[in-house]
Amino acid sequence: MAGILPPGVSEKAFRSFVAATQNALGKQHVFLDPEWDLSAYHDQYATLPKAEHQASAAVAPADVAQVQAVLRAATQHGVPLWTISTGKNFAYGGPAPRVAGTVVLYLKRMNRIIEVNEKHAYAVVEPGVSYFDLYRHLQKIGSKLWIDPAAPGWGGVLGNLVDHGAGYTPYGDHLLMQCGMEVVLADGTVTQTAMGALPGSRTTHLYKYGMGPWADGLFTQSNFGVVTRIGIWLMPEPPGYKPYMITYEREDDLHEITERVRPLKLNMVIPNAATTVEMLWETAVQKQKRDYYTGKGPLPDSARKKIREDLKIGVWNFYGAAYGPPPIMETNLEVIRDALVSIPGAKIYFDEDRVGDIAWDYRKQLMRGVPNMTEYNLMNWIPNGGHMDFSPISPVTGDDAMRQYHLIRDRCNKAGFDYVGEMLVGWRDMHHIFCLLYDLGDEDEKRRAHDLFEDLIAAAAAAGYGEYRTHLDFMDRIAGTYNWNDGAQQKLHQRFKDQLDPRGILSPGKMGIWPKGRRPGAAS
Amino acid sequence: MAGILPPGVSEKAFRSFVAATQNALGKQHVFLDPEWDLSAYHDQYATLPKAEHQASAAVAPADVAQVQAVLRAATQHGVPLWTISTGKNFAYGGPAPRVAGTVVLYLKRMNRIIEVNEKHAYAVVEPGVSYFDLYRHLQKIGSKLWIDPAAPGWGGVLGNLVDHGAGYTPYGDHLLMQCGMEVVLADGTVTQTAMGALPGSRTTHLYKYGMGPWADGLFTQSNFGVVTRIGIWLMPEPPGYKPYMITYEREDDLHEITERVRPLKLNMVIPNAATTVEMLWETAVQKQKRDYYTGKGPLPDSARKKIREDLKIGVWNFYGAAYGPPPIMETNLEVIRDALVSIPGAKIYFDEDRVGDIAWDYRKQLMRGVPNMTEYNLMNWIPNGGHMDFSPISPVTGDDAMRQYHLIRDRCNKAGFDYVGEMLVGWRDMHHIFCLLYDLGDEDEKRRAHDLFEDLIAAAAAAGYGEYRTHLDFMDRIAGTYNWNDGAQQKLHQRFKDQLDPRGILSPGKMGIWPKGRRPGAAS
Repeated sequence: MAGILPPGVSEKAFRSFVAATQNALGKQHVFLDPEWDLSAYHDQYATLPKAEHQASAAVAPADVAQVQAVLRAATQHGVPLWTISTGKNFAYGGPAPRVAGTVVLYLKRMNRIIEVNEKHAYAVVEPGVSYFDLYRHLQKIGSKLWIDPAAPGWGGVLGNLVDHGAGYTPYGDHLLMQCGMEVVLADGTVTQTAMGALPGSRTTHLYKYGMGPWADGLFTQSNFGVVTRIGIWLMPEPPGYKPYMITYEREDDLHEITERVRPLKLNMVIPNAATTVEMLWETAVQKQKRDYYTGKGPLPDSARKKIREDLKIGVWNFYGAAYGPPPIMETNLEVIRDALVSIPGAKIYFDEDRVGDIAWDYRKQLMRGVPNMTEYNLMNWIPNGGHMDFSPISPVTGDDAMRQYHLIRDRCNKAGFDYVGEMLVGWRDMHHIFCLLYDLGDEDEKRRAHDLFEDLIAAAAAAGYGEYRTHLDFMDRIAGTYNWNDGAQQKLHQRFKDQLDPRGILSPGKMGIWPKGRRPGAAS
Repeated sequence: MAGILPPGVSEKAFRSFVAATQNALGKQHVFLDPEWDLSAYHDQYATLPKAEHQASAAVAPADVAQVQAVLRAATQHGVPLWTISTGKNFAYGGPAPRVAGTVVLYLKRMNRIIEVNEKHAYAVVEPGVSYFDLYRHLQKIGSKLWIDPAAPGWGGVLGNLVDHGAGYTPYGDHLLMQCGMEVVLADGTVTQTAMGALPGSRTTHLYKYGMGPWADGLFTQSNFGVVTRIGIWLMPEPPGYKPYMITYEREDDLHEITERVRPLKLNMVIPNAATTVEMLWETAVQKQKRDYYTGKGPLPDSARKKIREDLKIGVWNFYGAAYGPPPIMETNLEVIRDALVSIPGAKIYFDEDRVGDIAWDYRKQLMRGVPNMTEYNLMNWIPNGGHMDFSPISPVTGDDAMRQYHLIRDRCNKAGFDYVGEMLVGWRDMHHIFCLLYDLGDEDEKRRAHDLFEDLIAAAAAAGYGEYRTHLDFMDRIAGTYNWNDGAQQKLHQRFKDQLDPRGILSPGKMGIWPKGRRPGAAS
């Protein structure tokens, strides 16, 4: 099978680009065969035909100099690049580029753990370092530092951070915990940001802001540069850790749970991501749908009831943890009991109460920074399971939680899907993650999944809710909802793009940001 | 006395600018008289002649529409503007512009407290709102939210934040606690950042990042736009508060204090800014130098000894506080005693032990978010007292603390000044603030102060320490120390400048960022 070309690039120019990168990186690090090599860069869970996001090639530089060589060749021949780190951004498009024909700039080979600083509690990593890699390294050297992994441990520490990912320990806001960045601009210039711009700086990974504007945030969820190194603060292992789970009997309890969690989070009684998980999420990580129901459409109430009995779970299941010396944990747990277990029907569980429970076990690991892959069992809920995440941000109120739940659940059930969702409370916000599961072998189901997503985006925006992250297929549409004052923010992003990447070679279309001349409809 | 003109602007163009702004703002909000009106925009503590930073005019818009009108007139006539909020950035230049002749864009009239959200614990303010304003408003409405003021309570909530200011409660990293921003670009475009860009957004001040690049940091310590509104998270009043002070007898104790504070901060045993204050800072807020010494040069040891006895203070004086329910405070205080009071000679004091102590009292207020002006007593240490702050960032280690202390103290004493300093430990860094006090009536002393500053910048940079903020007179010099890879970061800042403010009308020279054509020597 013949490969495809990047948009607007002649075969001759593409061949020259390939030759130049082969020369700089070695032939074995330039991938061209569409059947073999490039299938690794598909979105395994795509609802649209794979051709929509088919890469023309993938190149894997080993260091900054090779990144610069790729950028030079791309600029010279007008070849667009799609930057990925470990390529595990599944649910949001995985390693696939936004635009078919884009060359994937794959940074997995840049996988050095450059520094672990035990004294000051931080690490410095390259893009190819996964949560598993960093965790294993810390274990190996006997470190007393925790990481804060995303639910799937194969994710990249850097890639997740620059996509504004969140975790489950008290260090769950990854961008907040970032300190120090190395970025290669489209023209090849390497920049150390903030304190790192001082030669011989002793505080590169200790103080976030440097002197002058703080530009680091601009290189996250964007296509303005290639982030090749990042500093991230790590949490020192606390003297104690006690995770807990509270089950709730009624659907409407979500309102009261959320109202009571808000002050507990604001007052740091719950220092980590306070997570309310709907029963099907709990179920799908350990059971298959056909164990309970073989009909069409969402699971009926009778089956839901049976599941709750079998698994000893609630309609909603709340997870949190206490950290610190025992007296501090005990004080906080007492407040938590008073506030959260006093809701009628609530039951609290600790580790000894959930022996052998798969769902409990992986959350217990995540809240103490141990990466694992258990959550990927979700994909087994239905045959040929694929998924995309719909991720609106919500205020931490009972009314908003119920409104978002109904908004999504009703549309989702109507479209024939199960609602599989969770809500994670951070500093002031709630991430509502709806994991839409569909059968990859069923074209009609994939089409309905895609349509449902579009419907959800519009309905959420109309209600004042915006998403924090999204799949390739919906970047333009969601960017288009952030359109206050005639799209002033989007136009600002475009101005950065024009200034930093005038040739438009870096990740065209990422988060709805397009190079000049390719913007029609981007803000529509 | 005749006024001056902005650089490169003809008298005719300036008059047209003035007429246009008078027309838009009202004559009473355009200030022109150099003797009367414009003396308010001097740096009261300048070491260089006032002419160096003399404004040609000041304009005070009342709202965003008037800001836009000023920007239009400035663009049309090529008039540069220097944006200030409350104008209280003293020690760093106060309200004065970097370049003589620049028109001050004074935002004090935009002083609305737009929202106080008790439920979600945040406030939204315009640039003219001071810490006193916000505090009084919260008191008036019976709010249970704390603010986090800078030491001088007249400072602006927004202005301090965009200058990367820090405070003394657990919410002391102001930029970290910022959420939501309105910015007017040089071309007059108004942008709401992050979630605020979604019309009708319900999470503008609850989630920092929105979708896509996070640009807010770019509008801090810069001249890329005029920030006209900001959201800031406020700390809910904790159930308990117990401040403490620990005195240390020996100069070298700084090493051990710092070593022991580091793990206490990393583990959040001390949740707020852990502050180690040198004895002269404690002294100068309540005594005058001549009470103890009338000779030239730094205070001799004999006088220092007498002071310590009189004021019951140490050579170093450590301040921190416990927050929360009593069992949590007690647990933390026990750890703090074990770690910090076990240094030989250390004594711990609580509120009941320091009745009538001015220094204790204002720090006790600051650590619970009550703004005051006590620290300004520092200016009374010597006659005609002026001050500038030298503010290098340090790692939190004993070695670094001692090295910075000696580096500054020795040069400072040699130049004939007292070392008046403190060190504040945040998440991972230590802000070392050296408050250089000099006699404004003594030209030789001012010259020596200026020269000392230049010496300190070079010596600190050579040792790997950079400053986080600085006085107008040293912006270029310090920006020039952040010159890794041929000034890559500074060039990046310049590219932002060229894109967002191609005419160069916004705050030329701020933090060493100059418009095109005015950059000679900026990076030297």
